[in-house]
Amino acid sequence: MQGVSVMGRGVLWLMGIAFLVLGAAGLGGSGSLAQEPLRKKALEVLVPLRSEEPPPPGSTLGQRVALGRMLFFEPRASVDGTVSCSRCHLPQLYGTDGLARSIGVMGRTNPRNAPTVLNAFLQFSQHWRGDRESVEDQAAKALVGPPSFGNSSQEAAMARLKAIPEYRELFGKAFPHDKDPVSPKNWASAIGAFERTLVVPSRLDSWLLGDDRALEERERRGLERFLVTGCADCHGGIGLGGSMYEKFGIHMDYWKATGSKELDRGRADVTGDPQDLYVFKVPSLRNVAMTPPYFHDGSVFELKEAIRVMGITQLGQEIPQEAIEELFQFLCSLTGPLPQGFSEAPVLPAGGFRP
Amino acid sequence: MQGVSVMGRGVLWLMGIAFLVLGAAGLGGSGSLAQEPLRKKALEVLVPLRSEEPPPPGSTLGQRVALGRMLFFEPRASVDGTVSCSRCHLPQLYGTDGLARSIGVMGRTNPRNAPTVLNAFLQFSQHWRGDRESVEDQAAKALVGPPSFGNSSQEAAMARLKAIPEYRELFGKAFPHDKDPVSPKNWASAIGAFERTLVVPSRLDSWLLGDDRALEERERRGLERFLVTGCADCHGGIGLGGSMYEKFGIHMDYWKATGSKELDRGRADVTGDPQDLYVFKVPSLRNVAMTPPYFHDGSVFELKEAIRVMGITQLGQEIPQEAIEELFQFLCSLTGPLPQGFSEAPVLPAGGFRP
Repeated sequence: MQGVSVMGRGVLWLMGIAFLVLGAAGLGGSGSLAQEPLRKKALEVLVPLRSEEPPPPGSTLGQRVALGRMLFFEPRASVDGTVSCSRCHLPQLYGTDGLARSIGVMGRTNPRNAPTVLNAFLQFSQHWRGDRESVEDQAAKALVGPPSFGNSSQEAAMARLKAIPEYRELFGKAFPHDKDPVSPKNWASAIGAFERTLVVPSRLDSWLLGDDRALEERERRGLERFLVTGCADCHGGIGLGGSMYEKFGIHMDYWKATGSKELDRGRADVTGDPQDLYVFKVPSLRNVAMTPPYFHDGSVFELKEAIRVMGITQLGQEIPQEAIEELFQFLCSLTGPLPQGFSEAPVLPAGGFRP
Repeated sequence: MQGVSVMGRGVLWLMGIAFLVLGAAGLGGSGSLAQEPLRKKALEVLVPLRSEEPPPPGSTLGQRVALGRMLFFEPRASVDGTVSCSRCHLPQLYGTDGLARSIGVMGRTNPRNAPTVLNAFLQFSQHWRGDRESVEDQAAKALVGPPSFGNSSQEAAMARLKAIPEYRELFGKAFPHDKDPVSPKNWASAIGAFERTLVVPSRLDSWLLGDDRALEERERRGLERFLVTGCADCHGGIGLGGSMYEKFGIHMDYWKATGSKELDRGRADVTGDPQDLYVFKVPSLRNVAMTPPYFHDGSVFELKEAIRVMGITQLGQEIPQEAIEELFQFLCSLTGPLPQGFSEAPVLPAGGFRP
C-alpha cells in the first residue's frame, strides 16, 4: 500500500466491498451460489476447524502451554535420555517420524505407527486402538511405555525433571496452587495444553466457511467424490475422522490388501470383545498428504494406494483411477501450515542427562 | 517512540549522541577508557566473532544452505530412519543432546560426547580426536559411522534420498552443474554450507568490539581471570578453543580428576604416535554454559566442576572458589542467541522411510 494516497485507499476499500458483494451474489463462473450446493452437502457431515488465539503469555494457561511446549521437546524425561514427544512427532515431518512403526528408548520398536500430533486433540480417543482417553492420558502413559519413554515409573521421570531448578520454577508458575507441582498429572496437563494449541486449519476449512477461492475445481471434484463414495461416512466431523471405531477390512482382510506382514487384532486386544477383532480408530485425515506411511502398521507408503486400499477393504469397490486422482487432490487440500510454536523448538534448561 | 513529537525525537537523538561521546571519553565508572586495558589484553589472544548476513535465498549458495538445512533435519538418510544430524544436535539443547555419549541408529552408543554444532565450523578440525577435517568431512563420514547413521555405504543413503522427487530437484538447483547431484559430496557440501551459517556471537564479542555495557563487572573480572590464569593459552582465538590439540591430564591423569570409568587414548589411536596419548582437541568454549555434560566422555555435569578439573589437570592448581565463580560468570557470557534457521525446523518432503 506504500505510495497509495488517502483518496486512493478509499477507492481500493470500495472496490473490496464491491468484490465481496458481487462474490456473495454468485456472479462469475465460480461464484458462491455455484458452489453452495456442494458446500451445503459437505456441511452435513464435515465441520470447519477455526484457528484459535493462543492464551495470553502471562496467564496461567499461557504458562502451562509454554511449559508443555518445553516438555514436548524434552528428552531427559525418558529412561535413556533419547526420547521426547518430538522424537516420534518431528516438526519437520508434520508431527510424525516417517517410520512404519516408531522406535523409542533402547531402540525398541513400537507396536503401531505414530500418527501426527497436529489436530490430534480433536479425536475422541487417542492411539490406533483408542486405549488412550485423551492427549493428556497419552502423554502420561507414554512416560512408562516400554518402547516410548521406558521409565519404570512416572515418578522416576519426574525425579529427573525436578533435579533441574528451572523446571521446578516453571511447573510452580503453571500450577500455582499445587504443593508438589512437578508431578505426572501436571506433566500430562501441560503437554495436553500445548497439544491443544496445535490447531491446523486447512484450505478446506476456509472453503467450508464461505471462501469460494480456497479450493480449486479439481479439489472440489475430489470433495464431491469424498462425499458420494462414502469416505465421509467414517471420515467425518471436525477431524475428518477420529470420532469412531471401525473394522479395518469389512470387504476384504486388510493384510491381503496392504501386504501387512504381521496381524494386529486391534481393539479386540483392548476390550476382549470378539466383535472388536481388527477394529481400529478411524484416523483423522487432516494433513494426511504430509504424514505417510499409512495405516496402523505403516504398511502403505503412497496416499493414492491408501485410497485404493480403503475402497477395496471398506467400501467393497475398486475406486476408478480418475476418482483416486480427484480424491488425492482433495486430501492434499487438507494440509495446513505448521504452527510456529511447533516448528520452532524452545530452548530448554541446560543440564546433562543423568540416568 | 509512539507519542514522541518530532522535536522530542530530536532531543532524544541528541541525548544519544551525548551518551556515546561521554562513553567514548571514558567518563563514568565503567567507561571505555576504564575497560580499555582489559580489552587490549583480551584482544591479544581472543578474536571477536561477527554475525554474518545469510546468502541471498535465490543464489546458488542460498539454495545450498536451504538444502543443507533440510538435510540436517532429515532422518531418512540413516539406516533405520531414526537419525538425522539434529538427533544428536538438538536445537532445544543448543546443538547437543545432553547425553554423556550420543546414541545413534539401532540404539548404538557413540564413543564420545557430541559437541554443539553451533560455531563448530570455526574449529580447525572436527571431533574430539580431530579425525574429521571439516564440518563437511564430518557430515560425509557420519553417513557410514556405525553408531551414527549406520549405512553400509554413502551411496545407500543417497539412494533413499534420490527416491524422493523433491530432493532430486533441490539438489539439482543447489548444484546446477552436476550431472548426478544427489551425491555424498553434495550432501556434505550442503550440510557444511548450512553449518557455516550457524554463527553465534555472544556478549563477549560485542564487548571486544567496543561495547562497554555488553559485559557486567563480574563477567569482566572473570575474563581477567581467564586471561591471567592461563585458560586462554589453549582456549584462545575466535572459538575460545578449537584451534589446537592438548593432552588432557598434564598435571594429573584426567580420569582421576573426572571419575571417568573408561580410558580413552585420544589422538594416539588416530595417529599411532605415543606422544598423542590422551591428547584431544581443545574444545571451543562458545555456548559452553548451555552444553553440558563436559569433556570427551561427558563425565562432568557441572560447569564449575569442569573449571575445577581443568585447573587440576591442565594448570596444576586448585583454582580458588571465588575465581571459579568469576570464571563461571565469564563463561556464561559466551552464550549467544540461537539462529532462527537452526531453532526452526524446515518442512521436509513427505514420504515414509523405506529401509
